[in-house]
Amino acid sequence: MTQAIKNLDKLCIHTITTKPLGFERACEKYARLGVKGISIWQDAVEDMDPGMVKSTLANNGLIPVSYVRGGFFPSLKADKRQEAIGHNLGMLEEAAAMGIPMLVLVCGAEPGQRLEISREQIRQGIEAILPRARDLGVKLAIEPLHPMYADTRSALTSLKQANDMAEYFADDFLGVAVDVYHLWFDEELEQQIRRCGERRNLFAFHLCDWKVPTTDMLNDRGLMGEGCIPLRQIRSWVEEAGFAGFHEVEIFSHSYWSEDQENFLEKIVNAYLKHC
Amino acid sequence: MTQAIKNLDKLCIHTITTKPLGFERACEKYARLGVKGISIWQDAVEDMDPGMVKSTLANNGLIPVSYVRGGFFPSLKADKRQEAIGHNLGMLEEAAAMGIPMLVLVCGAEPGQRLEISREQIRQGIEAILPRARDLGVKLAIEPLHPMYADTRSALTSLKQANDMAEYFADDFLGVAVDVYHLWFDEELEQQIRRCGERRNLFAFHLCDWKVPTTDMLNDRGLMGEGCIPLRQIRSWVEEAGFAGFHEVEIFSHSYWSEDQENFLEKIVNAYLKHC
Repeated sequence: MTQAIKNLDKLCIHTITTKPLGFERACEKYARLGVKGISIWQDAVEDMDPGMVKSTLANNGLIPVSYVRGGFFPSLKADKRQEAIGHNLGMLEEAAAMGIPMLVLVCGAEPGQRLEISREQIRQGIEAILPRARDLGVKLAIEPLHPMYADTRSALTSLKQANDMAEYFADDFLGVAVDVYHLWFDEELEQQIRRCGERRNLFAFHLCDWKVPTTDMLNDRGLMGEGCIPLRQIRSWVEEAGFAGFHEVEIFSHSYWSEDQENFLEKIVNAYLKHC
Repeated sequence: MTQAIKNLDKLCIHTITTKPLGFERACEKYARLGVKGISIWQDAVEDMDPGMVKSTLANNGLIPVSYVRGGFFPSLKADKRQEAIGHNLGMLEEAAAMGIPMLVLVCGAEPGQRLEISREQIRQGIEAILPRARDLGVKLAIEPLHPMYADTRSALTSLKQANDMAEYFADDFLGVAVDVYHLWFDEELEQQIRRCGERRNLFAFHLCDWKVPTTDMLNDRGLMGEGCIPLRQIRSWVEEAGFAGFHEVEIFSHSYWSEDQENFLEKIVNAYLKHC
């Protein structure tokens, strides 16, 4: 079995995880606990000057990992699809200006059309933004989502589909984000993680847990160890596939957002060391 | 494209769909609308004598299709697994006594152990009850569930896995129930339905819809046509695979259960003719 994690060198937290803190307090508190990486949601920094974001990160010794979240390419309407491409190009500029090396893509789905049509529109969207991503030096990470989000959030619901899409482009600036919440139940997970690594497409690794029971389809994610996801097993597959990047904690939870966020951060650190 | 449905000859309704009615009123009201089949949940008839159930069905000209639901084989504890087998054997006796030709298996999952262990316990459970099912002339239908139920309800979360399990036993009395709600997003659905038919394992076809948004993970299923599932497309695959059985409407919905059930039944009939 994979060894326990011994330090926080690879721990990264998504700003949405501690949404009530806001960006600057989040940075301070992450740094104080020894967290090394931060993934930044657009809402957390939308009112800030990119230079200010960079200096806040530098002052706290935090490494920016991902900018979240682009994507949402499919639509029944051509002008909406074009608008989505424009929005993604804007997010790439923002990421570059803040020195964030990767944009996560929640690719989207349009319930009024077949999933394969949405997937083709995702392909077109990626094709439209990939050259600019390359120019700016910002990588794109396709995040396949749990099938319960296939109606509106992602027509890509398996790591296999994300791998297929990444391999279609076969570009150093396009890869995949593996989030345990979305993929834990997949019988092919080990095999698809291996494939993802072999093609050098394994760009990101996201952690949380699946609570039993889960009471909200979006905002009831669990802290690592309080659910049924075999976290250490999946980490071992990701590491065997050559991944050496950050372990990003991404928890959406009405329950945790209503807690004291400093206590919650301590729980995250402890859960990370104990269960991941 | 597959032709629209022209009559109610293959329409079957699950008693849970109109839970507030109870069994006898459900039978009367289904029959009055011209519904031909009924799938019976255990709770609807648990206080009734099997002979009384048979005569109620006969008096209303209803054909019993499925008895719902056996399964739930996995557990951390051996005595609980044995208990589940006993419960399933009991349900087989009940089905036989009521003249219901098939038992649906919601196979179960145990969040405290890996999914592959739960799947092995499911295999053992089926192995333990299949001989009795054969003796009684009651078929078993494995129902793969949506991955959002992988924690406690089913370690089988794809039609591929259900097909694998059915083919492992290769028995005339073991097959698969295809429910659009659980499988609609699966990229391999057409191919796995074809495979299921080729092996003569396609035993049942369940209908409802996936609402956008879905607000409850269990009890917010939609009426056919009000969601994003390509119902007619999936029916065409099922029919091309040789399925000629009933179309079973199975809707769990707090919202519909709180409505007048006669109005709801009319909506079901209309939605069935219009959207399936």
